[in-house]
Amino acid sequence: MAWKQHITLAEVKELIASPELEVVLANLLPADIAEIISLLDQEDRVSLFAHLSSDLGARVFEHLEPREQRPLLSALGATRAKQILGDMHSDDIADFVGELHPEQAKAVLSLMPHKDAQEIRELLVYPESSAGGLMIKEFLTLEQDRTVDAAIAAIRENALTNESMYYVYVTLQNKLVGVVSLRELILASPEAPLKEIMEDNVIAVSPTTDQEDVARLLSKYDFLALPVVDRQNMILGLVTIDDVLDVLSEEATEDISMLGGSQPLEEPYLSVPIFSMYKKRVTWLVGLAILLAFTSAIMERYEVVLETMIALTFFIPMLIAAGGNAGTQAATLVIRGMAVGEIDYRHWPKIAGMELAMGLMLGTTIGLIGYARALMMGESITLALTVSLSLLIVILLAVLTGALLPLVLRRIKVDPAILSSPFITTMVDVVGLLIYFAVAAYFLGIVV
Amino acid sequence: MAWKQHITLAEVKELIASPELEVVLANLLPADIAEIISLLDQEDRVSLFAHLSSDLGARVFEHLEPREQRPLLSALGATRAKQILGDMHSDDIADFVGELHPEQAKAVLSLMPHKDAQEIRELLVYPESSAGGLMIKEFLTLEQDRTVDAAIAAIRENALTNESMYYVYVTLQNKLVGVVSLRELILASPEAPLKEIMEDNVIAVSPTTDQEDVARLLSKYDFLALPVVDRQNMILGLVTIDDVLDVLSEEATEDISMLGGSQPLEEPYLSVPIFSMYKKRVTWLVGLAILLAFTSAIMERYEVVLETMIALTFFIPMLIAAGGNAGTQAATLVIRGMAVGEIDYRHWPKIAGMELAMGLMLGTTIGLIGYARALMMGESITLALTVSLSLLIVILLAVLTGALLPLVLRRIKVDPAILSSPFITTMVDVVGLLIYFAVAAYFLGIVV
Repeated sequence: MAWKQHITLAEVKELIASPELEVVLANLLPADIAEIISLLDQEDRVSLFAHLSSDLGARVFEHLEPREQRPLLSALGATRAKQILGDMHSDDIADFVGELHPEQAKAVLSLMPHKDAQEIRELLVYPESSAGGLMIKEFLTLEQDRTVDAAIAAIRENALTNESMYYVYVTLQNKLVGVVSLRELILASPEAPLKEIMEDNVIAVSPTTDQEDVARLLSKYDFLALPVVDRQNMILGLVTIDDVLDVLSEEATEDISMLGGSQPLEEPYLSVPIFSMYKKRVTWLVGLAILLAFTSAIMERYEVVLETMIALTFFIPMLIAAGGNAGTQAATLVIRGMAVGEIDYRHWPKIAGMELAMGLMLGTTIGLIGYARALMMGESITLALTVSLSLLIVILLAVLTGALLPLVLRRIKVDPAILSSPFITTMVDVVGLLIYFAVAAYFLGIVV
Repeated sequence: MAWKQHITLAEVKELIASPELEVVLANLLPADIAEIISLLDQEDRVSLFAHLSSDLGARVFEHLEPREQRPLLSALGATRAKQILGDMHSDDIADFVGELHPEQAKAVLSLMPHKDAQEIRELLVYPESSAGGLMIKEFLTLEQDRTVDAAIAAIRENALTNESMYYVYVTLQNKLVGVVSLRELILASPEAPLKEIMEDNVIAVSPTTDQEDVARLLSKYDFLALPVVDRQNMILGLVTIDDVLDVLSEEATEDISMLGGSQPLEEPYLSVPIFSMYKKRVTWLVGLAILLAFTSAIMERYEVVLETMIALTFFIPMLIAAGGNAGTQAATLVIRGMAVGEIDYRHWPKIAGMELAMGLMLGTTIGLIGYARALMMGESITLALTVSLSLLIVILLAVLTGALLPLVLRRIKVDPAILSSPFITTMVDVVGLLIYFAVAAYFLGIVV
């Protein structure tokens, strides 16, 4: 179904600058043409683009990455650039312009009619990850006394984009009071006024609503778009489901990267330059390595205990790793629960109770394994007790911290996904060692 | 905007069994009514449901969890159950029936007209996570010689669901040859035959296409629905964007849980019973604890080396943790890259090259920190060299394994998300110790 079934890249390259190319391109979808363009060099990109109609050109341009859009638009010249911008959706123009240097942005906006440029400037006010940053300015409103017929006529006249034409928003003195889906318009009698068929319980968001909350509402109510309104309930724009689909995927990637202890890459893995990849990854690793320096200080401090019983060291890796694993598990479940909106910091008493029980149950289970392991290796009961009791305490603490710390962070408005599993593991390593040596010193009767 | 702004739970409870409730419910959206029902006890659920019209009842029922649907449907009685099933979407019925015991499923299907029940049975053939498992059977096809007017009339007559009415699929002798969006229908001249306005490059999937691939195609092409076709190119059903939105979020939750070393919870964190939570979490932790038993065996085996230089132990936690962190980071980036379709196992040479460079760069950086740390603690140059060289080797290996193992797993069709960070950390712990002692024995001139 994709373009590879219709044509190979070599064939495209051969056809460039031949009129036949237009026939081929007419059979491809915009996303596929954009994919082909990404594989060409700059000169061929410009030649291929010359074959596209203004509307198709705009659709293709929207699918390109900002770093591909910039040189292409300059190379196309002002006249063509004006056409492309005129046919692009406002949210895509804002995304493109938002990535430019202020001077370049000004130059691009100067190519647009004053009113359109003003709209783009308004969109750029909102953070990229808010409803205002995601919304498009193309939407249709009609006063509530207008008829179904008038609404359908308005849809025809405005020739709205695919994404923004599935709802007509109904207003009373310009304030949003209802919504009618295209389905209802088609089924209703042509003379019915909109107020008779509209749904008056409209779900709307403010421009500062976080994109994750927008995604959650769209998914909960199964809508294709949500209106964005100001404080006077005047409609400012529309967030459509296709943009939310992309957002959900990006947010999950960001969370997963952070949980894995890396800054999000921003570009596909395979196209990140090596030094920028190094920068994204080294920060956390160095920070954690410095934190880990405490472990050697702790070990040195307890050298006397270690020399009394060298076998104590045998269980250090097991102890700290088991604690780190349990803490990572708890933190991951809670962080994801918050990301999908199931958990809120107000739930902390319930979570603390659950994780207390989990910590005791999991700690006892793993503690027993540690006990058995020490005896299997022919160690003393004292050592076996030290190992198993330490495992229980460390796992209990790790589970409680792992589950509750994300809630604290959310409360103080820090993204809990920074609690990566490497970070939790490292913290547990440091604390776990302290607990182990304290327990050992107690059992061995050593005063440190 | 949500129901809490209109009515409190206490007010709902008071109004139950009063005719006034109907007025209140008419102002709420199905998803909100379902949320209220979840908070009521079984008796009140049944009373509240009695106030809902058949169509609204079906919409509300679709939003409930399977464990809430089962007792409610039984309590409603056969006549009402028949109505509800008659108004539900085929994919939601299939999801509900698929969770029942075979006997119960048979009983539910017997309430439906033979043809509808047959459709549900067909849907149940496909795995839940495939296009076939997600699709709905409500869609509209017309032969390519029919006109735009005929298509709009057909939409009116069929009163399709919101999600399945945005495209008309065009056939030639029942085979899918094109697609027309509702937007194009409204803009086109009423007498035009569909074949003149249709897009003939139709993106379709097979019923066995994985849901993640379906999500990727919808997102790439910005469609609201994709047709599912059989080998003869006859259309079997439709996957709609609202279902894909839910799928994306579920898949990310599943991946994140697995990366955190837990089995996915299947229910929201706060509603999982304590023992079932224990079962989901204990399996991995016990498995890893058993794997960790190797670390104590390795330490015991190298007791001679440890006794020669007790200071060696001081750096063990740092060494294994730094390796685990680097490995987790690499694995997470590659696993996510594969999940969003950016990376394929065929990219392994490029990835191996990238991670070789990363391993050397990151290993050198962290190795230098380890070297400085050992000297700061007043240790010998021999020990400082042992620590830093081991860090370099362990990090290099951890990064390479973390990045390439997911590719191997994908190649042999195992979900790479099972490579949780706890698993990688634990593996690195075992291998890291072996490397450390080998390096130490070499520098200290000890033959073990």
